Amino acid sequence: MADKLKRADGLPPAMIRLVKELSRLPGIGEKTAARLAFHLLNRHREEVIGLAESLLEMKERVGLCSGCFGLSDGNRCEICEDPAREIDLICVVEGPADLMAIERARGYPGVYHVLHGALAPLDGVGPEDLKIKELLARLSDPAAVREVIIATNATVEGEATALYLARLLKPLGVKTTRLARGLPAGGDLEYSDAATLQSAIVGRREL
Amino acid sequence: MADKLKRADGLPPAMIRLVKELSRLPGIGEKTAARLAFHLLNRHREEVIGLAESLLEMKERVGLCSGCFGLSDGNRCEICEDPAREIDLICVVEGPADLMAIERARGYPGVYHVLHGALAPLDGVGPEDLKIKELLARLSDPAAVREVIIATNATVEGEATALYLARLLKPLGVKTTRLARGLPAGGDLEYSDAATLQSAIVGRREL
Repeated sequence: MADKLKRADGLPPAMIRLVKELSRLPGIGEKTAARLAFHLLNRHREEVIGLAESLLEMKERVGLCSGCFGLSDGNRCEICEDPAREIDLICVVEGPADLMAIERARGYPGVYHVLHGALAPLDGVGPEDLKIKELLARLSDPAAVREVIIATNATVEGEATALYLARLLKPLGVKTTRLARGLPAGGDLEYSDAATLQSAIVGRREL
Repeated sequence: MADKLKRADGLPPAMIRLVKELSRLPGIGEKTAARLAFHLLNRHREEVIGLAESLLEMKERVGLCSGCFGLSDGNRCEICEDPAREIDLICVVEGPADLMAIERARGYPGVYHVLHGALAPLDGVGPEDLKIKELLARLSDPAAVREVIIATNATVEGEATALYLARLLKPLGVKTTRLARGLPAGGDLEYSDAATLQSAIVGRREL
């Protein structure tokens, strides 16, 4: 669709270029891109410059933390550097967005390990494509780690990754746990899917 | 929502800034902005720089054509400068996106006049907020203009603007027309709304 946009549509080349760049973003088609471009055209110069600068700044500064492989603008992220965090409790997540979700929920006292993906053999994603070697390196002294919480998604790929990691960690003797599955907060039994209900029944707890 | 995003969510400040800037765009909430930011983080440096540059280039270069007030990266746009265009045929549209739609439909031989809005008294948009004075200036020699096609939207505001312009242009003696209304191409009578069907009946043509 994007290559259908031409100078002949009555738009100046600079506008066409912007629309094409914007329509490369996920979930943004050419019509949305054109709407965004028209919006930006009418915004203050400072606002557009601010957006452009924040793009460059992000690409310039943000890299991976050498400790947990989460996002960081330094060698190590603020969580790994925080002396109040329990470094013997490691929560393994698929991506930075998952880390963010857990941080947002508040109250998790440990540190993280970001895998940057989940096992998906059909898509050609194997263990060597994830930060699994790096996780094992962090567990080189298993006695220094109290618990590894595997917090991959509750999807087929996330479950496969969790099982793979559990098997890998077992010989090390590290306590390995998985996030609980069950009804979400505010969840209605009537509208729950079968898999969620089965998890909720299997994982039932005594009151 | 956007001001809820804090450093405490485990994101580096440069990432938070980008998410905030992106979520100022229309139709993009904080979750979509975060998704876009994560996507951009994983893209090649060149791609992100390309997007930032196209934003700056657009803001730097694109202005309004001094002839039709459409978008242009020079003093006059390519349509006004095109010797093949009939300059005595002026199509009045609300915005640059409308001009683009007509250009895309191909075959319109004339030039344009972009109003940059439509009359909306309730929103405080009056005739002085649109490029109406400028349209009258272009009609200062009515004999030099063959026809003015009013192509404002078929909305309440667009219709009000069309009526206002028609009344304004009548004393000048310039032929003033309005885009036809009726069934859209491929339109199904069964699913047409009443207003469209009424327009189609009133505007029926002999075969």
